[in-house]
Amino acid sequence: MRAVDLIRKKRDGGVLRREEIEWFVQSHVHGEVTDYQAAALLMAIFFRGMSGPEIVYLTRTFMESGKILDLSHIPGPKIDKHSTGGVGDKVSLILAPLVACAGIRVPMVSGRGLGFTGGTLDKLEAISGYNVNLPLKQFSKIVDQVGCSIIGQTGEMCPADKKWYALRDVTSTVECIPLIVASIMSKKLSEGIDALVLDVKIGSGAFMQTNEEAEDLAHALVRVGGQMHKPVRALLTDMNQPLGWEIGNANEVAESIQVLRGEGESRLTELCLILGAHMLAAGGLESDIDRGLAMLRNHLSNGAALQKFGAMVRAQGGDPRMIDHPEKLPQAKEKTEFRSPVSGFLCAARTAQIGLAAMSLGAGRERTEDEIDHGAGITMHKRLGDAVERGEPICTLRAATKQRLDIGRRQLSGVFTIEDQPPVQLPLIRKVIVEA
Amino acid sequence: MRAVDLIRKKRDGGVLRREEIEWFVQSHVHGEVTDYQAAALLMAIFFRGMSGPEIVYLTRTFMESGKILDLSHIPGPKIDKHSTGGVGDKVSLILAPLVACAGIRVPMVSGRGLGFTGGTLDKLEAISGYNVNLPLKQFSKIVDQVGCSIIGQTGEMCPADKKWYALRDVTSTVECIPLIVASIMSKKLSEGIDALVLDVKIGSGAFMQTNEEAEDLAHALVRVGGQMHKPVRALLTDMNQPLGWEIGNANEVAESIQVLRGEGESRLTELCLILGAHMLAAGGLESDIDRGLAMLRNHLSNGAALQKFGAMVRAQGGDPRMIDHPEKLPQAKEKTEFRSPVSGFLCAARTAQIGLAAMSLGAGRERTEDEIDHGAGITMHKRLGDAVERGEPICTLRAATKQRLDIGRRQLSGVFTIEDQPPVQLPLIRKVIVEA
Repeated sequence: MRAVDLIRKKRDGGVLRREEIEWFVQSHVHGEVTDYQAAALLMAIFFRGMSGPEIVYLTRTFMESGKILDLSHIPGPKIDKHSTGGVGDKVSLILAPLVACAGIRVPMVSGRGLGFTGGTLDKLEAISGYNVNLPLKQFSKIVDQVGCSIIGQTGEMCPADKKWYALRDVTSTVECIPLIVASIMSKKLSEGIDALVLDVKIGSGAFMQTNEEAEDLAHALVRVGGQMHKPVRALLTDMNQPLGWEIGNANEVAESIQVLRGEGESRLTELCLILGAHMLAAGGLESDIDRGLAMLRNHLSNGAALQKFGAMVRAQGGDPRMIDHPEKLPQAKEKTEFRSPVSGFLCAARTAQIGLAAMSLGAGRERTEDEIDHGAGITMHKRLGDAVERGEPICTLRAATKQRLDIGRRQLSGVFTIEDQPPVQLPLIRKVIVEA
Repeated sequence: MRAVDLIRKKRDGGVLRREEIEWFVQSHVHGEVTDYQAAALLMAIFFRGMSGPEIVYLTRTFMESGKILDLSHIPGPKIDKHSTGGVGDKVSLILAPLVACAGIRVPMVSGRGLGFTGGTLDKLEAISGYNVNLPLKQFSKIVDQVGCSIIGQTGEMCPADKKWYALRDVTSTVECIPLIVASIMSKKLSEGIDALVLDVKIGSGAFMQTNEEAEDLAHALVRVGGQMHKPVRALLTDMNQPLGWEIGNANEVAESIQVLRGEGESRLTELCLILGAHMLAAGGLESDIDRGLAMLRNHLSNGAALQKFGAMVRAQGGDPRMIDHPEKLPQAKEKTEFRSPVSGFLCAARTAQIGLAAMSLGAGRERTEDEIDHGAGITMHKRLGDAVERGEPICTLRAATKQRLDIGRRQLSGVFTIEDQPPVQLPLIRKVIVEA
């Protein structure tokens, strides 16, 4: 086989066979196919798409390029959740211990923040001592003994996906459904899970701006899951405003603890509960979503979920005192308020821009190699539909320096739309897509 | 500027500005933009195309990446011809000295053979001593004193095009009109010419298979020439059978000498004359094509053109005795005939396949680094429309070894279509496209 022929085949709208996809990806990992040939193929895929079987072959090839976890010795359903990324999305921190209380095992391999989106690993690292770089053996042990564990992607898993992902980032081939699907599914299915629940975000703070795009992606993910014999459910959820009050790292951990105590912001709490109920249903533990919701609500109110979070933090080397005393979490020294210039109702927010402002404060990364200030971030005081007075704070910004606060403030100008009438409220859960 | 943003812009159908094209190409030449980013941009251009101005900017950027010859001190019109490549295309060897007799100066920077197409430089190197690697100063001196010179592309001219061309070859982005146009025009206009005549080949032995494709390319070339204030004429010519009787190198030189003596095969002779007449017209020496044809025909019959060829060969270090005694040119030891299995009329030929058979005999290259056997090749005995008897030779193959002859023979099976009725003859010149 020759790389140039496979590129031409895809370029001309052909369908690549399994052996062709395997050969190309494997030869690229081994350095026999060059990065520039892979880049040309990526752009051809961007324009021509991939068939269902092609996506499955690509997913499998990514998985088989590395280690695939075997958790079959652990009793109970092993289920993970994946979010396509948003602003203030701390759901993983809450959901993993919450469903673990109900008997689901959650082996979660998570990511870091980049651009306007935050990262679960960065948030957890705000807890001093929390180690996200555990060997897979220890990870699997914690999943067995505690019920959930959250670590970062290791070099052992899906190295081929890692190489393609890095290349997509620098060749403008990120926004391509077949490539997104293969990348997500290979990483998640390498965790040795039985089923997967997806949180596909839609709106001004998400990668997918429209219902249509998000639905296309969700359907593609669910379809590939089915073809690989792993039940996948996708929830299309609203991301037209930050999720919860906090955007950052330490402040998001503190907010997660509030939710785990049953005292969290209502939309965030609701999202965690509904995703959890679908995990219970996917795992065969409770097929009725309403009964699942009630069961999980109980685990919040009786303290079990918070206790489980504490157990996971301890198992991964984190300081458990921070859980009972979230005020011990790092907090940036300087702060300022962003006040409304007019009175009215908060009708819209350019949410990705809020994420970028948090990034500028130090809470995120512009490039993968940037350092994070765990104490920096934004606290929202208003949600869409809330009344706001002229001069009233819409949010509070925190950063290590006044200069950073200035940059963050500037990035928030024009982000909030205040109008005379309250907006029509969009539902938090737009749609649920379950494999037929 | 960031490469990734420019790739995205083109990917999404945007039009790149002059500064953006310059920045990308220059940064790539200097190694700041990577090959994989250039490959992604090439594939995006393949799908999205380029506007007229974009092609002009790309052509200029290629030119300005290297040396641009200044021949303004040489009196008379400086005009070159470029062919898109075919099988048995030895026109340059004949045309350059022919029009030089009529007062046109021909500074021709030519290429080598690859795949089914032969290369002018390889043919000239069949003449012992002929040096295609002259310094530009000497090249320009020969153009001044002799009237024509044919050399190879030097590293000094269009290095950016060279880099892109090599990348296109391995990323399946060769067949893309804007990229073809910028590559051809930058190389040709760097020769310091006043006008250009293009021979755009159509048919089974050409890159363009249909009239439509060839016309699109021709129009794009003529348009860019006009925008760069260089008159360009394009002739769309037939390539459904080899041009002349000979396919190879030394044998094509011998055939060129025959044409220069006024004793050549009629279609080949006609093509050289008509291209030459358009060069005279483009150069303002003779605007009437028929009068130009008569003038050039005279230079063939009076021996002037052959003498001019001899002068160019001598000036470039070639052995001039080979011109008077073409039998001294190298000739491969082994030969065999390819005979018709049936009687009838030669109705069609898969001409590119004949080029590939010649390549296998040793006359061409599969890869750029392959060596050439100047004495190998094919001699046709029949043209389309000719009657052929069962057992009669359609062509003769020559190679250094019997094994090569066997491979070449095998490649010719199924190449010739013999039918009961003679075919409809297609005209040699399909169309002439002159800038309005």
